Amino acid sequence: VTGGKRVAGEEELIVRYLRPLASGFGGAYGLADDCALVVPPAGEELVLTTDAVAAGVHFFPDDDPKDIGWKALAVNVSDLAGKGARPLCYQMSLAFPEAPEHAWLERFASGLAEAQAEFAIVLSGGDTDRRPGPLAITITAIGSVAIGRMVLRSGGHAGDRLFVTGTLGDAALGLKLRQQPGLAQSWGLACGAVAHLVSRYLRPMPRLGLAAALNGFASAAMDLSDGLAKDLGRLCCASGVAARLRVRDLPLSAPARALLEREPAQLTGILAGGDDYEILAAVPFEHAARFAAAAAESGVSVTQIGVLEPGEGVCIEGPGGMPLRLEKPGWDHF
Amino acid sequence: VTGGKRVAGEEELIVRYLRPLASGFGGAYGLADDCALVVPPAGEELVLTTDAVAAGVHFFPDDDPKDIGWKALAVNVSDLAGKGARPLCYQMSLAFPEAPEHAWLERFASGLAEAQAEFAIVLSGGDTDRRPGPLAITITAIGSVAIGRMVLRSGGHAGDRLFVTGTLGDAALGLKLRQQPGLAQSWGLACGAVAHLVSRYLRPMPRLGLAAALNGFASAAMDLSDGLAKDLGRLCCASGVAARLRVRDLPLSAPARALLEREPAQLTGILAGGDDYEILAAVPFEHAARFAAAAAESGVSVTQIGVLEPGEGVCIEGPGGMPLRLEKPGWDHF
Repeated sequence: VTGGKRVAGEEELIVRYLRPLASGFGGAYGLADDCALVVPPAGEELVLTTDAVAAGVHFFPDDDPKDIGWKALAVNVSDLAGKGARPLCYQMSLAFPEAPEHAWLERFASGLAEAQAEFAIVLSGGDTDRRPGPLAITITAIGSVAIGRMVLRSGGHAGDRLFVTGTLGDAALGLKLRQQPGLAQSWGLACGAVAHLVSRYLRPMPRLGLAAALNGFASAAMDLSDGLAKDLGRLCCASGVAARLRVRDLPLSAPARALLEREPAQLTGILAGGDDYEILAAVPFEHAARFAAAAAESGVSVTQIGVLEPGEGVCIEGPGGMPLRLEKPGWDHF
Repeated sequence: VTGGKRVAGEEELIVRYLRPLASGFGGAYGLADDCALVVPPAGEELVLTTDAVAAGVHFFPDDDPKDIGWKALAVNVSDLAGKGARPLCYQMSLAFPEAPEHAWLERFASGLAEAQAEFAIVLSGGDTDRRPGPLAITITAIGSVAIGRMVLRSGGHAGDRLFVTGTLGDAALGLKLRQQPGLAQSWGLACGAVAHLVSRYLRPMPRLGLAAALNGFASAAMDLSDGLAKDLGRLCCASGVAARLRVRDLPLSAPARALLEREPAQLTGILAGGDDYEILAAVPFEHAARFAAAAAESGVSVTQIGVLEPGEGVCIEGPGGMPLRLEKPGWDHF
């Protein structure tokens, strides 16, 4: 919206900004065909996932286009990571309310290029069009996994230990800080802490390193995008079990921990705010130690947060020892 | 917008309307996981394509939701058909400006179900969200083709004969009739003719039957979505050749032919209007007869419309024998 020069047509957009993102993937044919060709590596099968992000819903219209590109791809790759899959390629559909500016496209493509290099994934094809409404980026990411080794939501059993990667709630707090710039001061946060939390919102980092630990030892897994409470409920539902965990066992970053001490009401956001893009895994008790060791070997920190039990539902023990009741366990669009 | 009952949340939308569309595809896990598993049939590789349709751009907001569902899937399957691929499954991302009504969803899902049955394709996964702007449906369709047999845009050579399936321009005329209801009368069209043209716009029929002829004999092919003139230009550009054709050789339906005699200016819409979803194929001269025979055997009508030549660009000889100049060869969103 800066009055800069706009792209002249689909052809220019594709050739100048998108084609370079497809280099190195033979089946993309330099985006000169309308279909891509994908062959799973020998002994592997393909894993597909689809997620859309839109301005004003999943990101802010004035976010740095580099961050928008990164996030659009990262939220999809995170789904693959949650299944123990390795990224291969992605299809991307772009919807612009008006012809985008060159300066915007350049930064957007460079954010995608950065994410591609980080996640080892390449653009294979897609679609661009112009329509009213917010800028929207819809990606279908394709990964691969050894035959029969994809980790489902539905494989959990009573007795399995629950693990999560990284720390929870940072992105939800980062979103609030992004929405209300005055909040940092009233929360008493130092600049470094604010930067950490906001960057966790803007630049999710899929835990691809966990693949070996997941494929080797997990009974069920998924990435956390709509909040721990809601997503754990989904894993329980798919596996036909209940879950029990304690808030004091949840892994929190130093800024989140300090903030929670000062503002206990922020616990809801940490449990139900979403945008974590960490991995939740259920691991049979007898494999728990080896799972943790394999994760550590891959450089991914994991924390045991609870256990699966017979029954249904998620029981979260609050800081005071009483069960927590969440009014809204997580994100729903409707 | 009829004040009917709206869906209560993502869960209800998925379980009630989308899950039934995924039955029969094991790798969809009943849409209870966030990823799908896809294995190409033995000896085949996967073909991917992505196309979005949005209300007010690709269809009318008040179109029958059955037609909207059909078209969203058909335009993607048509891309697969143009490569000689067989449909397998599809990922679908739905963006609603507000929670959709049950009555709308029911018809939308039934249109998709009809299309699925017709094209032998099953829903494998996707994503739903709510955002301002028009209703949008983004699909990535996955098909398969014998290893090494996908037909590209880039394989054409000078001397190849150009074929198209079906008839051209019906959908572009149907769109005009849909936009301006008074037009039917001023064009002097009978009800049956109007219904034919409008249905060609609303319900494209991917030419999947052409696969054997394409895989066996075509050097290059693609489906026609943005108008013959523009799409043929793309095939020529990808193949590094020129094309020559005569308007009088183009296959037209009886209503389109009658209209063109009365309204010669409509020729532009026929050549550049888009939405044909027929297949354009280049076939080496020595295979042309066998290509036509294989197509006939599969029940797909094909017409030879021209020839590829050395050079670049598309030369269309108009009805009077002079080369046509098109101001805008086809659809561009920007």
